[in-house]
Amino acid sequence: MTERDTVAIDLNSDLGEGFGRWTLGDDDALLSVVTSANVACGFHAGDPTVLRRVTERAVAEGVAIGAQVGYRDLAGFGRRFIDVEPGELANDVIYQIGALDGFARIAGDRVRYVKPHGALYNTIVHHEEQAAAVVAAVRAYDPDLPVLGLPGSAWLRLAEKAGLGVVHEVFADRAYTPEGTLVSRREPGAVLHDPEEVARRCARLARGGGVVAVDGSTVPVVADSICVHGDSPGAVAMARAVRERLTADGVTLRPFAPR
Amino acid sequence: MTERDTVAIDLNSDLGEGFGRWTLGDDDALLSVVTSANVACGFHAGDPTVLRRVTERAVAEGVAIGAQVGYRDLAGFGRRFIDVEPGELANDVIYQIGALDGFARIAGDRVRYVKPHGALYNTIVHHEEQAAAVVAAVRAYDPDLPVLGLPGSAWLRLAEKAGLGVVHEVFADRAYTPEGTLVSRREPGAVLHDPEEVARRCARLARGGGVVAVDGSTVPVVADSICVHGDSPGAVAMARAVRERLTADGVTLRPFAPR
Amino acid sequence: MTERDTVAIDLNSDLGEGFGRWTLGDDDALLSVVTSANVACGFHAGDPTVLRRVTERAVAEGVAIGAQVGYRDLAGFGRRFIDVEPGELANDVIYQIGALDGFARIAGDRVRYVKPHGALYNTIVHHEEQAAAVVAAVRAYDPDLPVLGLPGSAWLRLAEKAGLGVVHEVFADRAYTPEGTLVSRREPGAVLHDPEEVARRCARLARGGGVVAVDGSTVPVVADSICVHGDSPGAVAMARAVRERLTADGVTLRPFAPR
Amino acid sequence: MTERDTVAIDLNSDLGEGFGRWTLGDDDALLSVVTSANVACGFHAGDPTVLRRVTERAVAEGVAIGAQVGYRDLAGFGRRFIDVEPGELANDVIYQIGALDGFARIAGDRVRYVKPHGALYNTIVHHEEQAAAVVAAVRAYDPDLPVLGLPGSAWLRLAEKAGLGVVHEVFADRAYTPEGTLVSRREPGAVLHDPEEVARRCARLARGGGVVAVDGSTVPVVADSICVHGDSPGAVAMARAVRERLTADGVTLRPFAPR
Repeated sequence: MTERDTVAIDLNSDLGEGFGRWTLGDDDALLSVVTSANVACGFHAGDPTVLRRVTERAVAEGVAIGAQVGYRDLAGFGRRFIDVEPGELANDVIYQIGALDGFARIAGDRVRYVKPHGALYNTIVHHEEQAAAVVAAVRAYDPDLPVLGLPGSAWLRLAEKAGLGVVHEVFADRAYTPEGTLVSRREPGAVLHDPEEVARRCARLARGGGVVAVDGSTVPVVADSICVHGDSPGAVAMARAVRERLTADGVTLRPFAPR
Repeated sequence: MTERDTVAIDLNSDLGEGFGRWTLGDDDALLSVVTSANVACGFHAGDPTVLRRVTERAVAEGVAIGAQVGYRDLAGFGRRFIDVEPGELANDVIYQIGALDGFARIAGDRVRYVKPHGALYNTIVHHEEQAAAVVAAVRAYDPDLPVLGLPGSAWLRLAEKAGLGVVHEVFADRAYTPEGTLVSRREPGAVLHDPEEVARRCARLARGGGVVAVDGSTVPVVADSICVHGDSPGAVAMARAVRERLTADGVTLRPFAPR
Repeated sequence: MTERDTVAIDLNSDLGEGFGRWTLGDDDALLSVVTSANVACGFHAGDPTVLRRVTERAVAEGVAIGAQVGYRDLAGFGRRFIDVEPGELANDVIYQIGALDGFARIAGDRVRYVKPHGALYNTIVHHEEQAAAVVAAVRAYDPDLPVLGLPGSAWLRLAEKAGLGVVHEVFADRAYTPEGTLVSRREPGAVLHDPEEVARRCARLARGGGVVAVDGSTVPVVADSICVHGDSPGAVAMARAVRERLTADGVTLRPFAPR
Repeated sequence: MTERDTVAIDLNSDLGEGFGRWTLGDDDALLSVVTSANVACGFHAGDPTVLRRVTERAVAEGVAIGAQVGYRDLAGFGRRFIDVEPGELANDVIYQIGALDGFARIAGDRVRYVKPHGALYNTIVHHEEQAAAVVAAVRAYDPDLPVLGLPGSAWLRLAEKAGLGVVHEVFADRAYTPEGTLVSRREPGAVLHDPEEVARRCARLARGGGVVAVDGSTVPVVADSICVHGDSPGAVAMARAVRERLTADGVTLRPFAPR
């Protein structure tokens, strides 16, 4: 692959995932690093006061606000598949986008994209009915809202077919197979922990150089956004390392969904 | 008092108060009677699928959609005072308005007013901090949204001071004291059950003739909207009786908050 | 099959499925008909005040109290499969049994059996891990608690293997295939609506005469308990018809789990 | 005051206050320090898996398990007064005790006392109806369960009158007025942060020497249990300092509610 000279990419992360007394991750620190914030909307995490605060700071930092919609499951943090009837799932998604959008507008912006969370994210990689329901919800709410997701997923395929803008993401700290899919978290080496290595991979990805797979081959992964995790130990340090390396390499960091 | 000849009034009722498997009241029947629907927003009642359905039917019937915001208390149906910190209460209210507004917009309209529910309604009659918080929330969301409430309440006084449109309501089936306040529900005769009597009182009220108090005196109550209850036995029959009588008397029924 | 002369059977029904302001079914009426009450425990329905009331009346009526445990899903009424990790599911079940048991003991009795609800009931017919988790929960709570369920299910098979008492139930108002399984609700005729017909079938079942399948053949279904539905229109009338017919036929109605 | 020579006291702390993905405090560390664990029961915090884990470890460490009952308010962490009708509050409390007791019994022990949490704790210092409701709940559940609370509160007064065992607690890190009440958190110096100072005060208290008030006078506070906070920064270090000092001073640490 030929690497691109002048490049820009987006950094996204999950934010606003506290609830009441409970906090999770360092929203403020991450908002000074990423360019797009996937903000929890209250169904798996995120109470209204969290949403108010995160949207205000995101706007102050020039970070794009995305609706991180999930299953209605606080106890499970949205990480458990729920066999919701598609029509109800669509309504659950609309409710969440609308709720977050109110805060985004008060903060002077609006919800600029949608990224499903947790088990919903994983389910609509392959579950056609639920994927179609989330697509229908976004389309009903605002057909100009782009959606963020995994390349090759039913979610992005159906979204594209429905006329929605589609944004591909890669995971900064995950190992890839030679086929370009993620190495299962059950395999050793699936998750990378060295900030320098992760930053190096991101810089290569951003320049269009693809990713080096676990067997040493180069896979031509193309992405518009890099996902950095927000709630693991060392999350902020790794996100900063990625941002610094990208900046040092002349990669422009900017939201994929501009105002 | 001189009665007005050409008059119009609004009929409002609480709607969308089911949740999941549980239903409450007959939304469809009431939507063919009232002109303004106070739609529950999910915190005391109303799940996203209920909101979708009610907003769509309200728009089809030409009924104005209002946000019936409440305390976060499904188990108590929003009928228990909660000592929420004002800043958090404001955010809870914004969240609810935003969530409902998404569905209202998908249905082709928008939230046109705000009416607090249950214990929140009763609390902000006198609780200045919580009243100010709800006012601040509405103002932040959209300063053009009028608010519906009890004449003489802190809620309407502070709303007016903040520049919000203020709409007074009377209760169709409640007895009034000579001072123009509601007879406490603990007193005998506080609630009227005869649809014909209630309809007669409404007709008089609509024409500006005030209300006959429990002591027989006439109280110059002025109102822009009449609240009919939605979830008691006989609710639909009473609402219909009120509507029919008003129409027969030449009173025009129309939303106070037009599109 | 030879019909038994002296027979006894249990009638069970779902109860306590209101929540706060919302009611469902007529608990009082059903408690005068059934011999075992599957009482919701708060996760899919049933708030503490409902539990208090239903357990007190059940004891007053001599009705056995069973824990109707479900997924944590008020919005879905426990009718949606949730992919809960088995260890967490076991703990969710223990929590529910313990909560109900407190009320049962205050009322002068105790939880006498466990019957899963809705999607959990259906899932553990075949889902070995979740079935094993519910079995483990019951066993940990009290190995003397019998469990109620569908003959042939993984749930009853694993419960039996674990040494729990196992009680088979049939459905009063459901059509059966010649193989003895339930006709899918999606098929016409899957649910019977004529109280007389349902009562007749129950009388035959109670005497050991099996059930007449949709093709007219007789299927040797054996059951210790007949489930009558509690929340459909006409539920009470049908339950009463079943009880009256059984009594008229000399069938003794008594809880399978005596005090 | 004459200081006692041979003395024993209890150390209690709030535990089990995580929920799903969210953690709070270091339960394991505190369980190696305190002698009584006020375990959240799911209404303000604490999911079933948290309860399972904490009860098992408490039993392993010889720590007494208490039911830390609260208002049903996950979003507010039970820190907001809710005007629950007393009958419903009693049922909410019974539900929570029963749920926790199931886990305590599985772990080989049982709930040994009840201590209300947060806003409920503060409310029943003076709110007679809610205090009476919680007393009624404990009495109904098990009249042998002692209750833990603030000396001079309506809660302990009514509990005593109802025949419940009553246990007084002091707060290790709070300043006291000359009248023996807590200095309001709004005043400077209300909360003590120096582990050594706090430990010294606890040692004096344990020996019956009372507490030195903010004006330097000695107040004859008598207590059976010292509350150490579990979720503030430095909580574990302070709890350890208290324990070490008490042990060094020859004070025996043991649960007030023995098995």
